[in-house]
Amino acid sequence: MAVYTEVSDAALTAFLAAYDIGTLLSYKGIAEGVENTNFYLHTTGGSFILTLYEKRVRADDLPFFLNLMEHLAARGLACPQPIRDRTGVALGELCGRPAVIVTFLDGVSVKRPGVDHCHALGRALAGLHAAGADFGMRRVNNLSVDAWEPLFRLSEPQADTVSHGLTERVLGDLAVLQASWPLGLPSGVIHADLFTDNVFFIGDELSGLIDFYFACTDAFAYDLAICLNAWCFEADGSFHRDMGAALIAGYEAVRPLVSAEVTALPILCRGAALRFMLTRLVDWLNVPTGALVQPKDPLEYDLRLTFHRTATDARDYGWAGPGPSA
Amino acid sequence: MAVYTEVSDAALTAFLAAYDIGTLLSYKGIAEGVENTNFYLHTTGGSFILTLYEKRVRADDLPFFLNLMEHLAARGLACPQPIRDRTGVALGELCGRPAVIVTFLDGVSVKRPGVDHCHALGRALAGLHAAGADFGMRRVNNLSVDAWEPLFRLSEPQADTVSHGLTERVLGDLAVLQASWPLGLPSGVIHADLFTDNVFFIGDELSGLIDFYFACTDAFAYDLAICLNAWCFEADGSFHRDMGAALIAGYEAVRPLVSAEVTALPILCRGAALRFMLTRLVDWLNVPTGALVQPKDPLEYDLRLTFHRTATDARDYGWAGPGPSA
Repeated sequence: MAVYTEVSDAALTAFLAAYDIGTLLSYKGIAEGVENTNFYLHTTGGSFILTLYEKRVRADDLPFFLNLMEHLAARGLACPQPIRDRTGVALGELCGRPAVIVTFLDGVSVKRPGVDHCHALGRALAGLHAAGADFGMRRVNNLSVDAWEPLFRLSEPQADTVSHGLTERVLGDLAVLQASWPLGLPSGVIHADLFTDNVFFIGDELSGLIDFYFACTDAFAYDLAICLNAWCFEADGSFHRDMGAALIAGYEAVRPLVSAEVTALPILCRGAALRFMLTRLVDWLNVPTGALVQPKDPLEYDLRLTFHRTATDARDYGWAGPGPSA
Repeated sequence: MAVYTEVSDAALTAFLAAYDIGTLLSYKGIAEGVENTNFYLHTTGGSFILTLYEKRVRADDLPFFLNLMEHLAARGLACPQPIRDRTGVALGELCGRPAVIVTFLDGVSVKRPGVDHCHALGRALAGLHAAGADFGMRRVNNLSVDAWEPLFRLSEPQADTVSHGLTERVLGDLAVLQASWPLGLPSGVIHADLFTDNVFFIGDELSGLIDFYFACTDAFAYDLAICLNAWCFEADGSFHRDMGAALIAGYEAVRPLVSAEVTALPILCRGAALRFMLTRLVDWLNVPTGALVQPKDPLEYDLRLTFHRTATDARDYGWAGPGPSA
């Protein structure tokens, strides 16, 4: 939780003058948000989120993220919609940072999702993949299989101080994943970070998806594998098969998986778990002094990997077998 | 800036069930706020602030603060209004903390106020004093003259490491203030912490006052002295006489000062500066490890004291002399 950049009333008022969203009524720094600085904005034109992009987001990637949100919103997906200024430009600059205003989305993140939340998430995820089908830009997933070994090398000298035997386990996973990572699966725009914080509900209804700053072009089923990891496990590594089943069924209600995706699901889940374990491990071992954000525990994903190493079939994740449309 | 207490969606939904403010649509932790944890709440009933009181606020004092806000709001002062639950109680409990929901107030804090802001502030301050006149509760100002020497003793061993000669200067101020602190001035409810963060403007119009958690029963003119310190100085200690004049004139447009208050103004200003210097000094020397909040610089107030020590007359602060109604 953090506001990395303070924005004065005068700087904000000057910035807003370029937009046609009315007069500033209120703004509050939002404590959530690990990567960027976010403000809740209330103007006579409505409610918005102002984001200042801090150093972890590459400025070169911002046009992809912003155009994607605009594209998805135009296709009816409930996601933040970038506001263009009077000259038609969405990406501005404030306090020396790239800055963007997006529409405010109501909804609450569910800390402990249930079966119904997972089903709704599955539907929304497939809806996102469908809505992105005709998006014209591409962005390589720079946190996929090729990145994992170099990422691990950053932490390797200290890895076993975090957990005994971690190096051996990771090297084993890497060998398997590098040898058998599936290629040629149905691909397109994926969210790639659809954790519970990034999915809003109002009551039991899914009301929107946020935080597209890891979105990229990759296999759709890998996005499903990320969600299975993020939504269907306890912190102790135990898997909720009923939630996995609901997530997959919700997804297939909109976009049925092809057989290559079903076959690949266990290895995709294992890869997704390793990806989050590795980035968390780097953060865990490199907490800057004066950090405002508590790093997330990499060992939660080490525990999930224990499950994935034994899974051999999509049915282990709750897949119910080929449906009527498969 | 800090959210000290994380509140899950489930805990918040259960808490809100006791209130008649509709269904939860959104909540965001607010980064501002040094003492307490604040959330922006959006429900089908409107916008609110949820505050969880952390350890620095004494729970015994909360009824005074909450009843005061309710009293002032009922008299038309623009301030947050506590929401009572269905049983008529405003003070609840959430995540083991005393917790209160108040109405959300639009407006923006002005970082660098001008003459017009100061005039508006003066009017609002006098309006607050008037609106509190028939408030039935009392709360001793536990950060007034009697508290300053014990407060300084906490920091004395390290005071001169913060600034050379600080101990000698503080002891000199204490001697003067203890000998000549004015008693018997017109008194009642004062805000006692009306810094720029706690005053909202929309455009040039003052739209509200917030953060009544230092409010107490004390001399009205001491509240004016706090504002003169907080609004009319540069960080380098230089005083904006035109802003002081506007603040005092705004105040007197609503409630003219009596002659004893005019006479006491320099000593009240000196005392107010010492009070903030001393609490900042304690915080400066006692930053907890892992602190989320950057302490404020006590030396800004040491510099203001340099001015106050030479001031002998309310005219030094911009008072224009007895007005038509004095």
